[in-house]
Amino acid sequence: MNTNKTITRSNRPLILVTNDDGINAQGIKSLTQFLLPLGDVVVVAPDSARSGQSAAITVNVPIRMAQVDEQPGYKAFKTSGTPVDCVKLALNVLLADKPDLIVSGINHGSNSAVSVVYSGTMGAVFEGAIHGIPSIGFSLCCFAPDADFSVCGEVVADLCQRALSQGLPNGMALNVNIPDTDCIEGIKVCRAARGKWVSEYESRLDPFGRPYHWLTGHFENAEPDAEDTDEYWLARNYISVVPVTPDRSLNDIDNRIHNWMTD
Amino acid sequence: MNTNKTITRSNRPLILVTNDDGINAQGIKSLTQFLLPLGDVVVVAPDSARSGQSAAITVNVPIRMAQVDEQPGYKAFKTSGTPVDCVKLALNVLLADKPDLIVSGINHGSNSAVSVVYSGTMGAVFEGAIHGIPSIGFSLCCFAPDADFSVCGEVVADLCQRALSQGLPNGMALNVNIPDTDCIEGIKVCRAARGKWVSEYESRLDPFGRPYHWLTGHFENAEPDAEDTDEYWLARNYISVVPVTPDRSLNDIDNRIHNWMTD
Repeated sequence: MNTNKTITRSNRPLILVTNDDGINAQGIKSLTQFLLPLGDVVVVAPDSARSGQSAAITVNVPIRMAQVDEQPGYKAFKTSGTPVDCVKLALNVLLADKPDLIVSGINHGSNSAVSVVYSGTMGAVFEGAIHGIPSIGFSLCCFAPDADFSVCGEVVADLCQRALSQGLPNGMALNVNIPDTDCIEGIKVCRAARGKWVSEYESRLDPFGRPYHWLTGHFENAEPDAEDTDEYWLARNYISVVPVTPDRSLNDIDNRIHNWMTD
Repeated sequence: MNTNKTITRSNRPLILVTNDDGINAQGIKSLTQFLLPLGDVVVVAPDSARSGQSAAITVNVPIRMAQVDEQPGYKAFKTSGTPVDCVKLALNVLLADKPDLIVSGINHGSNSAVSVVYSGTMGAVFEGAIHGIPSIGFSLCCFAPDADFSVCGEVVADLCQRALSQGLPNGMALNVNIPDTDCIEGIKVCRAARGKWVSEYESRLDPFGRPYHWLTGHFENAEPDAEDTDEYWLARNYISVVPVTPDRSLNDIDNRIHNWMTD
């Protein structure tokens, strides 16, 4: 069939955009507007919300993809898949040239601390990094569907322009969280705060007496005073930039695990 | 309601078991048999296959959970959620005491190299590690539904007994892959081989002329000769043990990213 890799690079940078809130979310619309001055933009995004999809892929059913918009320097496609599926479909089915940059978001809500593990926004970013493409995820710390993303414009343009001109250090992707305030104090490179979500379910009975369980709860920061963490700086109205990697292997394995295995 | 945390510890270790192939898969049945000599086993697993779910969580609909079996020292529950949901439900809704060990699998098929990123089996393991519980994922390098898991019994018992008696080094979880052979040569601690899946879609037209896309393709190992990688040793009939972490932050951020941000 002829859908294969019909999109080629112009003389401008080629930027792939996705998200996990779905193609109709305000966050991806704002992101696209911020990126159009920097290059040609191809949006490949889920047809509806895929929050909490992490790096999930669709393996047991096929995926649909359809073009929904086209303007000069801009094309948009919706898919029935996850954020990672969207990146894979873009790279394998749509784009004849490798994109210069993958940008995911802008997420409606924080992806700081341990949320990076569950985030579909960041799942797409890890997929880009696996393919050796500079990849950045942006999240605004506001879950409202009608959130005002204008505060994000400057940092999106700055970091994406840097990534287009310099790439990113090898194996590194970025998780950028933006506080929901008009008074941003600055930007900090940091690491994800350790912690976990607690009290996570609200259990109810349905009209027929059978239980069902809603995921809820709150994040418990294990190191609220650590000045090198994203949570610390977001609480102080700074943008957090966390360098991340798709590599799940521990670096310092040598002694600890070998001792463990032979004890 | 009264489903909350009714399962308490006996005088034996408490082991939580889950998987991503679903509660009826042979892999989780074999795993349970291997673990019953080591402690009390509570199985909380998806009601059907959830392959490729990574660390996805269910956020927009509630989750169902129902007990499906009970024997002395053994209880089993199925859920409508993902592997991570299963761990969260077990910890928050079922278990009054924190389990001593979380074991996920035995997966039907390899979770070596970059597959750890997409694996629901390993998503559950990362969730356990986030909660500070020793967590191990096991996968047999055979996708067949009727795979013979007997080759896995010895390594499951050995590593899980070690984890029960010593815990695991702080912040470390284990990704264990087992070659599909009767002639296992040994066991190696290693890291995930770098690489990516390529040629990933088979695109077809439905009876109405509309395209759909099946995820397929193959893994391209970027470092086939690296002797410290899981792929290298699995190909030589060794069991691979990869220490992994749920932390996505890069450790060596200091100079590279600060230079990048200020260039």
